[in-house]
Amino acid sequence: MEYYLPKGFRFAGVAAGIKSRPGVKDVTLIVSDVPASAAGVYTQNQVVAAPVLLDRKRTPTSAARVVVVNSGNANACTGTRGDADAVRMCQIAAAAASSPVDSIAAERALVMSTGVIGRFLPMDKIDSGIHSAAQQLGYGQAAFLDAADGIMTTDAARKVTTRRYEHSGRTINIAGMAKGAGMIGPNMSTMLCCVLTDAPLTADQAQKLLHAAANKSFNNISVEGHTSTNDTMLLLANGQAGGSPLDAQAEAIFASHLEQMCIELAKQIPADGEGATHLIEIDVRGARTDADARQIAHTVAGSNLVKSAVFGCDPNWGRIVSAAGYAGVPIDAAKLALKLNSIELFRNGEPVAFDAKLASQAIRDNHLTHVLLTVGDGPGECRHWTSDLTLDYVRFNSEYTT
Amino acid sequence: MEYYLPKGFRFAGVAAGIKSRPGVKDVTLIVSDVPASAAGVYTQNQVVAAPVLLDRKRTPTSAARVVVVNSGNANACTGTRGDADAVRMCQIAAAAASSPVDSIAAERALVMSTGVIGRFLPMDKIDSGIHSAAQQLGYGQAAFLDAADGIMTTDAARKVTTRRYEHSGRTINIAGMAKGAGMIGPNMSTMLCCVLTDAPLTADQAQKLLHAAANKSFNNISVEGHTSTNDTMLLLANGQAGGSPLDAQAEAIFASHLEQMCIELAKQIPADGEGATHLIEIDVRGARTDADARQIAHTVAGSNLVKSAVFGCDPNWGRIVSAAGYAGVPIDAAKLALKLNSIELFRNGEPVAFDAKLASQAIRDNHLTHVLLTVGDGPGECRHWTSDLTLDYVRFNSEYTT
Repeated sequence: MEYYLPKGFRFAGVAAGIKSRPGVKDVTLIVSDVPASAAGVYTQNQVVAAPVLLDRKRTPTSAARVVVVNSGNANACTGTRGDADAVRMCQIAAAAASSPVDSIAAERALVMSTGVIGRFLPMDKIDSGIHSAAQQLGYGQAAFLDAADGIMTTDAARKVTTRRYEHSGRTINIAGMAKGAGMIGPNMSTMLCCVLTDAPLTADQAQKLLHAAANKSFNNISVEGHTSTNDTMLLLANGQAGGSPLDAQAEAIFASHLEQMCIELAKQIPADGEGATHLIEIDVRGARTDADARQIAHTVAGSNLVKSAVFGCDPNWGRIVSAAGYAGVPIDAAKLALKLNSIELFRNGEPVAFDAKLASQAIRDNHLTHVLLTVGDGPGECRHWTSDLTLDYVRFNSEYTT
Repeated sequence: MEYYLPKGFRFAGVAAGIKSRPGVKDVTLIVSDVPASAAGVYTQNQVVAAPVLLDRKRTPTSAARVVVVNSGNANACTGTRGDADAVRMCQIAAAAASSPVDSIAAERALVMSTGVIGRFLPMDKIDSGIHSAAQQLGYGQAAFLDAADGIMTTDAARKVTTRRYEHSGRTINIAGMAKGAGMIGPNMSTMLCCVLTDAPLTADQAQKLLHAAANKSFNNISVEGHTSTNDTMLLLANGQAGGSPLDAQAEAIFASHLEQMCIELAKQIPADGEGATHLIEIDVRGARTDADARQIAHTVAGSNLVKSAVFGCDPNWGRIVSAAGYAGVPIDAAKLALKLNSIELFRNGEPVAFDAKLASQAIRDNHLTHVLLTVGDGPGECRHWTSDLTLDYVRFNSEYTT
């Protein structure tokens, strides 16, 4: 598989001993050779991890140089000491990535952490891990994949995607990495995503585009709906593809690629939800607004009854329809309709006779379960992805030994 | 055990074959000898079962005579035919409970249904069940318990409570029955509660008192947070204790008993949540308002991570604190504090060192897990009860065979 890496970014991922299993990568370093526009989208949780507080202040910016990430410890709920540790991580990373001819200020670093909540960072391990990563920085595919591995926690699979396209005589590369299997491992948490491009974007452009992409992707996924303290998406654009900042037409093309890549990465999270046997794709249509549709989709996705029915391959449409009813936004019960894997189960507020055995088999035969829920005839719509609720999910999340 | 039954109410519960298991009671009939004030509190789901639509129109009233209930079929999502069936149930029940000297109008009946969503009621079985129940109506304890059994679905235990007290030379009796183990059985659903008293209450008084009691009890419980299409609480007060309607002081005493009884019944639902191994009692304090506190308590109670941690006897406070942060109401992160079974784990936004082994043992040793979450120094507070998320919960809810 060929990866299309943006010019002017170096990567590294190393094992620093933060995670208990030896040899597992847990520190990632990404360095842009030149100042990059950087944008961030963060958790909406009011209980916010130290690195999120720090990055929020620093983005958007037109002068980011470094992203440093650790996994195995979220640096969340760690008070003032945690805040100081996040600042210190940036200082260490900026210094380690500097050279005699290129001194990087600490303020040009961004930081992400993911893992256990409520424990202080082991700063000695962080320090030596960052220095070791700085030694190994590289432009190539192996370095990129090491970096992607260094941000993983309970993920079963590495989550990366890259894209190359030509526009107006310019070649633009975009590379994205993400982690997250929901906030689901023993004490583990958080979605992280970092997208890097050599496209020339202003900081404001980057911020606007990242927000738009988040609303179509990472804001529409859930495993169990527990909003993490650490969720962070970063976009760094260093302009090394050359030329002046993207004009409206070029921006639209970039936006489309970015959105598709974010969706691709985001869907991998519930698909990889610990214990998950199905990815559930929920399309809500006919709501008054997109926001209403999102609220309904999130509510259906948050129902344990819906999620455990899919696990059991049970076309239990009453659970889906009733979840739509308590989403807290107006729906037209007389226009409610439901299709499950294209099989019509409910129409205009009345049940439709269907072959339950066939409907069950359709769930069993596919990793993807598709829910199409119509709630009226408004223009609002949303597509949301979640995972099913399985015995293994409960096993993983209860078998933490104190 | 002695039950204190209100005067002037007759009860019956029979097996009518609506549920698949033969001999299991599934039709309940309650008749007041004289017109009773009746109040109702209903589901806030917009997808509403036919019996709820009907009762909503008929309450509050000062002239209720009959409550008819079936279990095994929710008569929800059944369209216009379902509406007609609910009306018909009331007609059959009123006629069956009438005598040559006491003709009861159909409009004086209230109806509740619980069970499978989306199937039409078997009206032939309902009809013969109601007639058979009418033959067996009785004032005594056996009849009362039959009625309580007739409303159960997946409940492992019958849920009743009765109370007798004296005030100003009057003896007042209150009897309550409830059902519900969450919306958790295969396709099963709904909380139902019916409270009967011989206290003289006006219809408005009954409505006000029932609302207040609901807000301290059934509105503060959850199993998985899936709001049913059928949730119904009814209060019937037939005045057979004698005397004039309760004055302010007498009303306050009655309200206190009613609230305590509703809490007692409500707590039995998550305690009996299918597969539950712990009842989790969540106290939120220090919020701006009671409504904010409720929102936070509900959000913590809705977190699968919190619920599976309790199942695993894991004092995983990060999950609780982070859930408070995404409840959507303002909290003061610097004043956040948490005690789990009286052990302090988090204070003023900083972790507190604690003995994790002892904290885990405290969860293991008690059926009740107590969470005390302080979110600021405001006056708002709420107490919520939920159950833990267990392997058996997922087994029950996925093992429906189509």
